[in-house]
Amino acid sequence: MTLETGSENTAHGGVQGVYKHASAATGTDMTFSVFVPDHAPGVKLPVLWYLSGLTCTPANVTEKGEFRAACAEHGIIFVAPDTSPRGDDVPDDDSWDFGKAAGFYVNAVQPAWSQHYHMRDYVEKELPELVASAFPAEMDRQGITGHSMGGHGALTVSLRNPGRFRSTSAFSPIVSPLNCPWGEKAMTGYLGPDRTAWREYDACALIEDGARLPDLLVDQGTADGFLEGQLKTHLLQEACDAAGQKATIRMQEGYDHSYYFISSFLAEHVGWHAQRLKGG
Amino acid sequence: MTLETGSENTAHGGVQGVYKHASAATGTDMTFSVFVPDHAPGVKLPVLWYLSGLTCTPANVTEKGEFRAACAEHGIIFVAPDTSPRGDDVPDDDSWDFGKAAGFYVNAVQPAWSQHYHMRDYVEKELPELVASAFPAEMDRQGITGHSMGGHGALTVSLRNPGRFRSTSAFSPIVSPLNCPWGEKAMTGYLGPDRTAWREYDACALIEDGARLPDLLVDQGTADGFLEGQLKTHLLQEACDAAGQKATIRMQEGYDHSYYFISSFLAEHVGWHAQRLKGG
Repeated sequence: MTLETGSENTAHGGVQGVYKHASAATGTDMTFSVFVPDHAPGVKLPVLWYLSGLTCTPANVTEKGEFRAACAEHGIIFVAPDTSPRGDDVPDDDSWDFGKAAGFYVNAVQPAWSQHYHMRDYVEKELPELVASAFPAEMDRQGITGHSMGGHGALTVSLRNPGRFRSTSAFSPIVSPLNCPWGEKAMTGYLGPDRTAWREYDACALIEDGARLPDLLVDQGTADGFLEGQLKTHLLQEACDAAGQKATIRMQEGYDHSYYFISSFLAEHVGWHAQRLKGG
Repeated sequence: MTLETGSENTAHGGVQGVYKHASAATGTDMTFSVFVPDHAPGVKLPVLWYLSGLTCTPANVTEKGEFRAACAEHGIIFVAPDTSPRGDDVPDDDSWDFGKAAGFYVNAVQPAWSQHYHMRDYVEKELPELVASAFPAEMDRQGITGHSMGGHGALTVSLRNPGRFRSTSAFSPIVSPLNCPWGEKAMTGYLGPDRTAWREYDACALIEDGARLPDLLVDQGTADGFLEGQLKTHLLQEACDAAGQKATIRMQEGYDHSYYFISSFLAEHVGWHAQRLKGG
């Protein structure tokens, strides 16, 4: 796999890069960003994945996330994939919550979308292999987080791959696509009307069906305009309570859905992941 | 003076706002951003001014600056003005280094520009009065910093107003408009060909002419593509050495001119300012 460097900037003593490669999973070029802290030659570092939300590219968190100081302090590589396949020949939808920038981290099976929309394979298989080969990444020490649609992605990727991630957290996640308009639209569009097929892409359903994580940290703003209609954090709390899943789900007073919220707590999440990534 | 709230977001426990007002200095609407940390009712907080560089609006540092955690920690209000007058009836230039987003913090006297381009009066007089009236700002505890054209602004505003700022720093400043193409173009355009009139807008000339600051902190990246041709940091070092002006001018290895550089050190600058703003 060949990696093309879009940009590399010195930042917080390390290197913030943006890279492009031809993806077999999506059949398109894909762009992602990686921050590698300063480190001694030959040393490998734990990896924290960050999956982004609707309308985003990797640029949003890379520019606004305020994660680099904490990643430099703790010696953690930070990887941010894109949110969908891109390109003129990739099908799209007029709405902002489906199609481009709204891949929902699924493998689409509906014919209109199944040629390119394989974001599950991309973030679960192809990109990790590329990261392992091209960066000083210690792949048995991985954590994952994400925002909104990317929070949904972080939770479901981790729940479906037991043992891969030592730590899982999320910001304002869509906790149950089965139970919100964004999810119903995306799952119907990419997967079709059979709701049983959606369960592997639904954090609450995965927990109900027996998947478990060692621990879970979720932050959700109380002033988030999507909380009541789309995110429904309480469903995750209820699923965790019912299943005995260890989880710290924090309602953060006055915070909204924006990067002003994420950037207020992402450094703390990095520290939380670091505790779990750097132990024995 | 009436303030219109563009947006207010909870961030790092405080409020990041963007505001608009009708400016008498520029004869236009002007937009600026203010971060106010969480504080007890009735308490006033020191103010750190941040002047932005060419092509920027207040959004650049507000979104990418990574200053809020440090401002929240130290209890410092952060104010970011715009870089020029704006609006359809404001004259502009086809180039990106003159006209809109390139006000250079001067009061223009050339007829083509003198109606609106009064950024010196705006940042020295009008906006401070507005900030003092509308925010819990302790105006006898002010510091100032800025980037590139805004570093030039921070240095010259502070040097011309002895005693107003307890602390002054800059990132990648244009240290001598008399001695670089950006400066020669802007000063000629706004002020005319008489170079003696430029000296009050030239940090090195102001120091040569006797202006002094209690202390000065400057960070400059060694990989900054504008260093040799435009910024010429060594001229400031020489002027400070010749005048006995206390200054810490740091060449930061590998850093460029971008916000990846600024955001790597802005929190440290906030701490440096805090030491000087919060003492007796």
